[in-house]
Amino acid sequence: MIYFDNAATSKPDEECLKRAEKYLYNHYYNPSALYAEGYSIQLELREARKNILSLVSASGNFDLIFTSCGTEADNQAIFGGGKRGNVVTTLGEHSAVYSAVGELKQRGIDVRFAKLNSDGSVNTHDLLNLIDEKTSLVSVIHVSNETGAVNDISAISAKVKAKNVHTLFHSDGVQAFGKIDFKLTNNIDLYSISAHKIGGLKGCGALIKRKNLVIKPYIFGGGQEQGLRSGTENVFGIKNFEFAAVKRYSQISQNYYHVRKLNDLLWEKLDKTLFTRISPENNSPYILTVGVEELRGETILHEVNDKGLIIGTGSACASNEKKRYSRVILACGISESLADGILRFSFSPENTVEEIKKAAEILNGTVKNRKQIMS
Amino acid sequence: MIYFDNAATSKPDEECLKRAEKYLYNHYYNPSALYAEGYSIQLELREARKNILSLVSASGNFDLIFTSCGTEADNQAIFGGGKRGNVVTTLGEHSAVYSAVGELKQRGIDVRFAKLNSDGSVNTHDLLNLIDEKTSLVSVIHVSNETGAVNDISAISAKVKAKNVHTLFHSDGVQAFGKIDFKLTNNIDLYSISAHKIGGLKGCGALIKRKNLVIKPYIFGGGQEQGLRSGTENVFGIKNFEFAAVKRYSQISQNYYHVRKLNDLLWEKLDKTLFTRISPENNSPYILTVGVEELRGETILHEVNDKGLIIGTGSACASNEKKRYSRVILACGISESLADGILRFSFSPENTVEEIKKAAEILNGTVKNRKQIMS
Repeated sequence: MIYFDNAATSKPDEECLKRAEKYLYNHYYNPSALYAEGYSIQLELREARKNILSLVSASGNFDLIFTSCGTEADNQAIFGGGKRGNVVTTLGEHSAVYSAVGELKQRGIDVRFAKLNSDGSVNTHDLLNLIDEKTSLVSVIHVSNETGAVNDISAISAKVKAKNVHTLFHSDGVQAFGKIDFKLTNNIDLYSISAHKIGGLKGCGALIKRKNLVIKPYIFGGGQEQGLRSGTENVFGIKNFEFAAVKRYSQISQNYYHVRKLNDLLWEKLDKTLFTRISPENNSPYILTVGVEELRGETILHEVNDKGLIIGTGSACASNEKKRYSRVILACGISESLADGILRFSFSPENTVEEIKKAAEILNGTVKNRKQIMS
Repeated sequence: MIYFDNAATSKPDEECLKRAEKYLYNHYYNPSALYAEGYSIQLELREARKNILSLVSASGNFDLIFTSCGTEADNQAIFGGGKRGNVVTTLGEHSAVYSAVGELKQRGIDVRFAKLNSDGSVNTHDLLNLIDEKTSLVSVIHVSNETGAVNDISAISAKVKAKNVHTLFHSDGVQAFGKIDFKLTNNIDLYSISAHKIGGLKGCGALIKRKNLVIKPYIFGGGQEQGLRSGTENVFGIKNFEFAAVKRYSQISQNYYHVRKLNDLLWEKLDKTLFTRISPENNSPYILTVGVEELRGETILHEVNDKGLIIGTGSACASNEKKRYSRVILACGISESLADGILRFSFSPENTVEEIKKAAEILNGTVKNRKQIMS
């Protein structure tokens, strides 16, 4: 099977799994326990926190709260930061932010959505226009999970703070972390990351926050994670996350160029009379999104699946919404007929040139054949 | 090492880990993905849900929402059910409920705490007196994590409903599930369980709810878990939870009697001039809590730890509160001098008679010696 749905979830890295196995079989103690074995796990969690933070910030200005997933991290940021006045976000957010601000709206908060450019990046001009003295929180996705468009959150957050210095800035970095070499700047208050998109495991994520920022916990209880996230820590998941993140960052440039090559090659090999590019040219190389006119993405997905190729039609998380069109793709201004035939290819550093060639062959053949049957 | 802190966390069951390993190494797909491999994982999650539910209910009247831990399940129940009027709970709750209702109080909800009996069980008379026509939620822990006292939640929930039929009844069943053979009755609306207390993994729990009960999600996003808990499902943790739960239930009676024997034997062997029993006689056999006068529990914990015995001093989750005395133990009416020397022994079916004998020896010797030094 050729697996090109790494933005939905990635194959866990076997080397990291092996390294983390001891937390399943031996070092299973409760990190809050007072005896030596528990305390030593507590120290290992500190190490994980420090090591992951060091990948995105050399400044020591940030803290990290382990959560159960990127979605939980996004929820904590949105509900913690967006409690009064208005909240400004974009039409290109992942459901974890989009649904959370929807809930804020239900609770009476004024929620404002900035428009997207045609490639899925946020229209910064529109975003800034929506911010006023009552804006408590701005949330802008770092890398679009649907098109791979990269928002320059360092620049955007600086402009946000210039407009209202009291506004908190959050970014969902789930599709950026471990893929794009990026350091957190001081205008970014909150940043969400996830383990299972970079060879770690489902069930583990984190919310990074500016050190002196006071944010409420979202899950209350035994006071783990310095009181900011209660519940016995998922030690195996966290240590595995650390190992996977450190490994990815140690190879981040070479991975980037390798995946860039794969992404470019796939686009090069795809028949341009059949496929329309949705992703921008300067996208994250980890994602390539295209559209096919007059065919349903889902139909193509199933047909190529039978031929040994796994792809996505957009956000797996959106599949539960059971809506025909992706709201993000429509917000890019793409017609419904093209939005119906969206295909997302998302890569991992383990993918190969040979897989790209084979995939292009399968895709060109399948779509061409389907179109001929229809005509 | 003799491990008697199984109420804090348990050693993952190796057989179940082996069975679940394929979800780490091969079946890693996103369960929300549309292709065959993703859908097959979705079916496996359904199977897990069905199998776990069948252990606590034959009626088919309940649903199950997978969460990241027992604490999250408790939070969803408390914040979902306790939104108006007043909320009635007990002084014997785990921090996951206790801190969550504390937050409700901050939000202006009238929170009422029922007193405890001296063994840590709830004073049902007091609990019922606190309930009135405005009570939206009652939450009573099933098995006390601090004393092992068992609350008869079937009887209590029936009395709660008799007083106010509209009141929701929730119970934190984390220390009961897989240990005490118990079926959910129809007066129980919400029930929290956790994987890592029964040989499963940290990072996985569930909230069981009455089927026709409408409860809000607590984590918003991609709409996983039928819209009730967003975030990519922790497939490995969930399947492992299923395997561990099914295994525990398949042996629940023999485990119960084995652990009862261990519990009784430890109490029998402990020097009654040194140790005062806190747990009731009809406690869950999985927990035995005792007190030592004039010594700090933490001191004993460290000393026996050096001799190869791991025990608790109460809730590991409470260790983050950094309070000298357990609020639950004090609520039992126990003096501060005894509350300072609380030791909690919590067992697993894997513990042996030999371990009990050795532990009693270590405990008697350590406390006797320490007392002699002090006198």
